[in-house]
Amino acid sequence: MSEIEVISENRCFDGVQKVCKHPSNTCGVDMTFAVYLPPQAEAGPVPVLWYLSGLTCTHENAMTKGGFQEHAAEHGIAVVFPDTSPRGEGVADDDAYDLGQGAGFYVNATREPWRPHFRMYDYVVSELRSVVCDNFPVNGAHGITGHSMGGHGALTIALRNPDLYGSVSAFAPIANPTRSDWGRKQLSAYLGDDESAWGVHDSSILLEENGWKGDILVDQGSKDQFLDLLKPEALAAAMTRRRQPGQVRIQAGYDHSYYFVQTFAGDHVAWHAERLHATHN
Amino acid sequence: MSEIEVISENRCFDGVQKVCKHPSNTCGVDMTFAVYLPPQAEAGPVPVLWYLSGLTCTHENAMTKGGFQEHAAEHGIAVVFPDTSPRGEGVADDDAYDLGQGAGFYVNATREPWRPHFRMYDYVVSELRSVVCDNFPVNGAHGITGHSMGGHGALTIALRNPDLYGSVSAFAPIANPTRSDWGRKQLSAYLGDDESAWGVHDSSILLEENGWKGDILVDQGSKDQFLDLLKPEALAAAMTRRRQPGQVRIQAGYDHSYYFVQTFAGDHVAWHAERLHATHN
Repeated sequence: MSEIEVISENRCFDGVQKVCKHPSNTCGVDMTFAVYLPPQAEAGPVPVLWYLSGLTCTHENAMTKGGFQEHAAEHGIAVVFPDTSPRGEGVADDDAYDLGQGAGFYVNATREPWRPHFRMYDYVVSELRSVVCDNFPVNGAHGITGHSMGGHGALTIALRNPDLYGSVSAFAPIANPTRSDWGRKQLSAYLGDDESAWGVHDSSILLEENGWKGDILVDQGSKDQFLDLLKPEALAAAMTRRRQPGQVRIQAGYDHSYYFVQTFAGDHVAWHAERLHATHN
Repeated sequence: MSEIEVISENRCFDGVQKVCKHPSNTCGVDMTFAVYLPPQAEAGPVPVLWYLSGLTCTHENAMTKGGFQEHAAEHGIAVVFPDTSPRGEGVADDDAYDLGQGAGFYVNATREPWRPHFRMYDYVVSELRSVVCDNFPVNGAHGITGHSMGGHGALTIALRNPDLYGSVSAFAPIANPTRSDWGRKQLSAYLGDDESAWGVHDSSILLEENGWKGDILVDQGSKDQFLDLLKPEALAAAMTRRRQPGQVRIQAGYDHSYYFVQTFAGDHVAWHAERLHATHN
């Protein structure tokens, strides 16, 4: 049983919103995460939706502003909100908002000074999954979603691990990081300048090469102030060329904020719940 | 037409979440507030729900964490989130979290140093109402609710102005401030030590003396860490003695946080919408 410390517990939609801390072997520091357990979890294990957050976020942003709990309670699934990087005094950082702490990019860094702690890919895929499965009443049906950098994380992690995830979606993902300033900078810093190591962290490339076993749901606001960096057109093109079932929905008038995320949170939770309950029944 | 400056606009549930600033004659400083306009407001004026926030809050807390927009969009009502006090360098303050900036208590201060700016009662009842009605597509059907200090504000403001408000509810209100350390300290500072001036700011006293024209909805968490300061038993007793239609619902397991507020936000929005749409049709 992994050792976790419960930092806070709040009753929410007849379930409970918890914030927990645990010593992470993968990241070499204590890591904080949040988990929402719906009321159905009192009767037995429930599916899990992983929500990966964007640049600058901690476990807290989507937990407080995403509006997922109401829908998770309705549909009987848990939601996990990991942090976006290791943190603390002994952890490398950068003055920029988009590198270092708060910007782990869901990769395993191979370059100094990031290599010792920045292993968010392994952390999310393996270690935190074990922690969650060991400590909470969840079953083996896991879906994954996320916003912006977290949408990138959700898509790339699912596409590389189809046996671990039954469903995948994203909110305004960084969809083609090998061709974007949101990506090239970070992949270069964390993985080095040999671009052949980058492709496994680009969902547009992964999707066109390997496809996905199910369908994919992506929402993207038409007035997103970061459209040029997100490059949803690359993902949409890859889906089309691959004949990949799924949809990239351009939502008129929406920007990159949590007002966008909360508006479509209900759609995504229902969509994952339908697929996860089906795979586990 | 009142002069307002739009600070931000975000599309949300097919409506728009705005944050605005305007010069307040009542408070003698610029004041910030938020307003959510549901999609129905594009077709014509809609009713308004006023949400008054608690100690330490600005217009932003409930706007981002309360989860009201989804329900307001469903039911076709606007929601206004005022600040909880005047703010700025020329405005008096106190080191305590529960006095001064962030703690206006919805009264008109008569004592120094608070008298010049701390006039949140008049600001909410009169000035901001005019600003909202002049600048946004709202009709004359106004309801009012709030949390903690804001629940106190909502109840006392409605009970004293039944012609201005068609519905009133509260989340964990400070229900008997003349008998609580959340109240006696502030009423003494803002209004002076003559307690005869305090009663018009105590909803338990007002309700027992005057009643309310409609029914009242109050939600209170059973595990609220501030129950001793909130004194819902005084309000429940006043309702009973007055034979006042309404309900004080003790919600098992809920605390004082926004997880409590967001859980019951849908109930309150639906409840107000039913009454406000009825009065205006």
